[in-house]
Amino acid sequence: MTSCRPPPPCTMTAFFKRLPPSRRRLRGARPRRRLPPRAMKGGSVGELPGRKADPLPALGTYKNFSTIDWVLEKSKSRDRHREISNNSKESLSALLLCISDALSGWLLMLLVGLMVGAVASGIEVATRWLTDMKGGVCLAGFWSDHDRCCSTSNQNTSQERDHCPHWQSWAQLITGTSQGTYAYTVDYLMYMFWALLFAFLAVALVGAFAPYASGSGIPEIKTILSGVIIRGYLGKWTLIIKTVTLVLAVSSGLSVGKEGPLVHVACCCANVLCCLFTKFRQNEADRREVLSAAAAVGVSVAFEAPIGGVLFSWEEVSYYFPLKTLCRSFFAAMVAAFTLRSINPFGSRQGPFEVNFHAGWHMVELAPFVLLGVFGGLWGALFIKANIAWCRTRSLTRLGRYPVTQVLLVTALTALLAFPNIYTRMSADELVSKLFNDCSLFNSRLCGDQHPANTSQTGVGNNVASRPAGEALRTALWQLALALLFKMIITIITFGIKVPSGVFIPSMVVGAIAGWLLGVGMEQLAYHNRESLLFRDWCSPHTYCVTPALYAMVGATACLGGVTRMTVSLVVIMFELTGKREHVMPLMAATLTSKWVADAFGRVGFDEALIRLNGYPFLAPKEEFQHSSLAKDVMRPRKSDPALAVLTRDSMTLGQVETLVKSTCFRGFPVVFSQQSKRLMGFVLRRDLLSAIGNARQWQKGVVSASKVLFRQNAPAQTLKAPPHLRLRGILDLSPFTISARTPMDITVDIFRKLGLRHCLVTHNGKLLGIITKKDIVKHVAQVANRDPSSVLFK
Amino acid sequence: MTSCRPPPPCTMTAFFKRLPPSRRRLRGARPRRRLPPRAMKGGSVGELPGRKADPLPALGTYKNFSTIDWVLEKSKSRDRHREISNNSKESLSALLLCISDALSGWLLMLLVGLMVGAVASGIEVATRWLTDMKGGVCLAGFWSDHDRCCSTSNQNTSQERDHCPHWQSWAQLITGTSQGTYAYTVDYLMYMFWALLFAFLAVALVGAFAPYASGSGIPEIKTILSGVIIRGYLGKWTLIIKTVTLVLAVSSGLSVGKEGPLVHVACCCANVLCCLFTKFRQNEADRREVLSAAAAVGVSVAFEAPIGGVLFSWEEVSYYFPLKTLCRSFFAAMVAAFTLRSINPFGSRQGPFEVNFHAGWHMVELAPFVLLGVFGGLWGALFIKANIAWCRTRSLTRLGRYPVTQVLLVTALTALLAFPNIYTRMSADELVSKLFNDCSLFNSRLCGDQHPANTSQTGVGNNVASRPAGEALRTALWQLALALLFKMIITIITFGIKVPSGVFIPSMVVGAIAGWLLGVGMEQLAYHNRESLLFRDWCSPHTYCVTPALYAMVGATACLGGVTRMTVSLVVIMFELTGKREHVMPLMAATLTSKWVADAFGRVGFDEALIRLNGYPFLAPKEEFQHSSLAKDVMRPRKSDPALAVLTRDSMTLGQVETLVKSTCFRGFPVVFSQQSKRLMGFVLRRDLLSAIGNARQWQKGVVSASKVLFRQNAPAQTLKAPPHLRLRGILDLSPFTISARTPMDITVDIFRKLGLRHCLVTHNGKLLGIITKKDIVKHVAQVANRDPSSVLFK
Repeated sequence: MTSCRPPPPCTMTAFFKRLPPSRRRLRGARPRRRLPPRAMKGGSVGELPGRKADPLPALGTYKNFSTIDWVLEKSKSRDRHREISNNSKESLSALLLCISDALSGWLLMLLVGLMVGAVASGIEVATRWLTDMKGGVCLAGFWSDHDRCCSTSNQNTSQERDHCPHWQSWAQLITGTSQGTYAYTVDYLMYMFWALLFAFLAVALVGAFAPYASGSGIPEIKTILSGVIIRGYLGKWTLIIKTVTLVLAVSSGLSVGKEGPLVHVACCCANVLCCLFTKFRQNEADRREVLSAAAAVGVSVAFEAPIGGVLFSWEEVSYYFPLKTLCRSFFAAMVAAFTLRSINPFGSRQGPFEVNFHAGWHMVELAPFVLLGVFGGLWGALFIKANIAWCRTRSLTRLGRYPVTQVLLVTALTALLAFPNIYTRMSADELVSKLFNDCSLFNSRLCGDQHPANTSQTGVGNNVASRPAGEALRTALWQLALALLFKMIITIITFGIKVPSGVFIPSMVVGAIAGWLLGVGMEQLAYHNRESLLFRDWCSPHTYCVTPALYAMVGATACLGGVTRMTVSLVVIMFELTGKREHVMPLMAATLTSKWVADAFGRVGFDEALIRLNGYPFLAPKEEFQHSSLAKDVMRPRKSDPALAVLTRDSMTLGQVETLVKSTCFRGFPVVFSQQSKRLMGFVLRRDLLSAIGNARQWQKGVVSASKVLFRQNAPAQTLKAPPHLRLRGILDLSPFTISARTPMDITVDIFRKLGLRHCLVTHNGKLLGIITKKDIVKHVAQVANRDPSSVLFK
Repeated sequence: MTSCRPPPPCTMTAFFKRLPPSRRRLRGARPRRRLPPRAMKGGSVGELPGRKADPLPALGTYKNFSTIDWVLEKSKSRDRHREISNNSKESLSALLLCISDALSGWLLMLLVGLMVGAVASGIEVATRWLTDMKGGVCLAGFWSDHDRCCSTSNQNTSQERDHCPHWQSWAQLITGTSQGTYAYTVDYLMYMFWALLFAFLAVALVGAFAPYASGSGIPEIKTILSGVIIRGYLGKWTLIIKTVTLVLAVSSGLSVGKEGPLVHVACCCANVLCCLFTKFRQNEADRREVLSAAAAVGVSVAFEAPIGGVLFSWEEVSYYFPLKTLCRSFFAAMVAAFTLRSINPFGSRQGPFEVNFHAGWHMVELAPFVLLGVFGGLWGALFIKANIAWCRTRSLTRLGRYPVTQVLLVTALTALLAFPNIYTRMSADELVSKLFNDCSLFNSRLCGDQHPANTSQTGVGNNVASRPAGEALRTALWQLALALLFKMIITIITFGIKVPSGVFIPSMVVGAIAGWLLGVGMEQLAYHNRESLLFRDWCSPHTYCVTPALYAMVGATACLGGVTRMTVSLVVIMFELTGKREHVMPLMAATLTSKWVADAFGRVGFDEALIRLNGYPFLAPKEEFQHSSLAKDVMRPRKSDPALAVLTRDSMTLGQVETLVKSTCFRGFPVVFSQQSKRLMGFVLRRDLLSAIGNARQWQKGVVSASKVLFRQNAPAQTLKAPPHLRLRGILDLSPFTISARTPMDITVDIFRKLGLRHCLVTHNGKLLGIITKKDIVKHVAQVANRDPSSVLFK
């Protein structure tokens, strides 16, 4: 056994010499920033070739809820790239490796696109099936949803399709009739039964297997992309459970959407696929670039809007989004949209939301559009404040300890109130689609009885002369008004329960109903004032006039904008749905108004409000820090704290170093020339130090507690009797970031944000004074904004 | 007289005490980064209240071709904001000031949108008029273009419109007939006469009044937005001359577009309007945010694509584009597009390019789309290389000294070759519009004689069965092939001459022709192989099949992408033109392919190639720097240079300081504790130092060359005989940026890029070692890329 073991190296330098050349390069002529030990593959100095891993914490990995060091990770990535391209000139296999490495990013994107497209299609099909199952079953095959069941028989009009013989409601199946109070009660009970069953399954699965599967996931993904490690959040279990429970939660009729969670699902897919490629498995920064692209893919499949998806990721989610990532997310979003389009899980609809109106708009209508923007902004502000308050209250009460009961209560309430109203009984996707269509494809009651031209796809029937308010329209109006009220309240109390839940669709429903109501109001106003100055020149008979569907769309955009505070990406997503250049203006006007109004009540969107509620250590990349503090006010140690723990260049013994390391829990230690001069030499990380000491204790002969620890280049002459020195210059980062103690905090925050630092040393007149970590920054930002700094989670 | 003068202040501190409180604040309890003297309004410490400006260079201003300090400018902006909002609680007028300050950004955006919309409309109308004037004149009023002239008479079909009685060609007017060789010759000569006249006027005006008006302006705007000062580039003269000469140049028939220069015109408008607002007039960073938005506005009016414009600015042009700017450019782009739409200068066309086809595409067609992408990439690479080489050659020959002759030669050549071919004779805008339309609105020969259903707007006529190649189509094919060749060559030799010239339209023309040709080829292939496996399922009679207009559009996108390397913004612009979601995929595929292919031949787009050709000090925000050098290899002083010029805290006399300043031309000097310790204390700018010394010499009693210059806080006790000290701590920046000498250059470049630094001090083990300026960085980047570092312009 012993003969197999290499003789223990006597110093770190000797130790490095044992590494294969590719690993040793990093300690070569050019000392790399912070890289020496950790940049090595697998990243463990403690791990000798051919040996088992040592018991020390693995290097190159991060703890849960710690933040990554972007500069280090990007350096590693660049080094790796440089090494591979330099090697490529040497042999054919190295050249092939270089080419495959260059292509691996694109290949990964292709796989992500394909996988997410397929998963999203599956979710869509399953959701439709289970949603319809609440109402009845297909006799031709229970696995068919209503649409699929009825499209096989030759019904062409939508009226016929609604009453196709293969599809039987539960009342028909059980009692033999679909008329009467008894049948209605049976349907009602079955609706509630399925809703509760689906919701129970969803919350049980989430609770049992993947607690991270609840919620939309976007706040956490924003946090992860900003550089925080949340272990397991994007794992394969989360992926599986989230996919299944998302279907169940949406099908149960809860006021939740599947668009937000699809972003999470896409990121899980990307993270799982990252494991196939060394490049992305080992580098946290590179992996985050892939995840940014995956977020784009998620939105791309959710709305079938690839450009909107890319912009969503760019504007909303990502932290670091270089041009390369832009191109890649563009590609992946395209592949995913293409996959979805090829599979086409949408049945008779042409996409997730079918928008089918061709009418334009008149300048006068900008006023109601802006009004919708105001409504959207108010709704956004109200929703965020009310939901966050409700979540806080709920977590303080006894109910907070029983997530399953919470979900069942909310589901029961939703189902109980939703069933009697035709507009709340149907799925939210369907309702939005109906509101976005000017009665063209659906034989719904939305258009009123005076509106016979329902089959016209060009919207020609939509001229004002044919649209006085009929009885059916009046019924639709008050039903929709009730639906609006219901959706607003139920959405506020739904969010925060432990099932997958996206906020996109519920917000859009609220806005679409409000917009449609306003649109119909405008239409009636125009109809009854045809001859007035305001309407005369654009509402003449047989021309396009007011289009309630456009109002619904503008309202949906405004409400979504109020809740999420998206701007360009939102308009692009909506524009991709309608495809009409002339609709960009109303959408833009509503979005901007909504953002202004909502910002007046609080500057953060729902996602960032949740980040704050959960206390994630997120440093918002967009907010401007305005407070006038200085770096020395924020750095540690504060005045009352003990002095900064530092190592010296050559005056400390191993025992002293070990004592210092054990008595503190800092992640790293500055190395100075001497305790007196405090001239900064470099920075050494705790784990590198522990690992190196462990190695030396194990392998280096004669190293004892009295050995001097040296960080200098040239060791002083050694007396014969003294124990051998322990040379640790190899693990020293010779170029730590420093700022002056008088640097204003606005600049410091900017530096941390833009460079993605994890810590920064503070000097004054060339002397080391203290250290600022990202944690200090996040806490200081919270404190300045009058939030409790201790609420921020770290490690 | 003397009694009016305030007694001369004896020290800088005393001097500061004389300033009004708002100015003094900056020297108050909280020492600001670099701010002390320069942050004051007007920015001159040399300027006492009530006095004339001193002869020293004004502080707070930058020299031509120097770079701004983003950190300083942002600090100034934040300070200003903080001061105004703090004051707002004190009085009503201060509150109103605060509100008006907050609204001023939006008001400015509104004005920019309105102004640019109006100017763009004027340019469009004038261009149409002058372009048509080359062919004839309107008898009903010579100021009418053909479209306007003929739309008044009641011709409805386009054929009738072409021969309307009010419009007379020059031959008709002069010879009385439009038939025969003589009439043709007259038309030919008149065409050339007008072309040469317009071109001469354009180049003469540019040469005489505004040399900066030539070219597209986008490279310079990119440079300016990255922080470089180019005086006069965005001035009112440039605006006026560029607007006029742009019309002349485009009308002369040169192969130049007006889309790129519109960005320059928009930025000029914004810059001129900035003067109305103190906030933007005085802060270079804030002004650059406005200019970023203006670039978006320019593209928004050029293509009537507001979203595309915003993305263009974000992806292509801007350097610093925070969320606030995103919202504002969005708003301004909307206002501008709305203004343009209200004025509607496009005549019978519905926008700058009318796109009118509704056909979809089949998956098989992805192959020709990718092929078009390859063509676009190759064209982009060829165009850039050939044009840059041609520009270099031209500037070396004698012709380079005669810009007027150059322009006249190119115009003569263009007109001579363009007139005989109907497709090159018409304006490029018109040709692109025709190619983008599937023969629906124009009675052109493009569609072939077998294609009678020309008036159908829905494109129903476009089924494969009705389209065997007729004689007219064959003629159109070879004429277009010739046009393609001509456009390719003439575009390469046109760029670089001294008239306003955009590259967007010429690139699009090349791509559109190529795409259309390929589309017709595919169509014929499909027609003749209707029954083959490939075409059977999608080219059955009476269904949509191959649409050459879509190919033209994809080709145009690919070529534009190859030349400019835009990705997302390009697709969005094109998508805004077509508005069909299903066309996003072909456009994306072509754009990405084009970018990959073009990048294989050289990673920079045309704009950056021009930046390099002109040697602008531009630090590309997107390129990754991969070289493995260290900060100490790049910093000054190099090994052979004299030692770094530093000031000391308290050991130098005024005479020594003055000698040092006079003997060097550095922009600033580090201040150290002593020449021996080299411990860094701060940084002082040359102009602040000169100004302070000048002041002291003039006003401070007893200051002579032997006076000690003190940068320390507490002055040492002074002997009675020694001359009084000169205290300069007030002008000392106590928190200069520092990096370690061993910081790798990739990280250093990133720091400069992301933070927008102008210089950075280099330390080693706490001692000052040297300095790196942005100039050094730009030169180093150029050197690493094997370009001549001395070609970079600075000051």
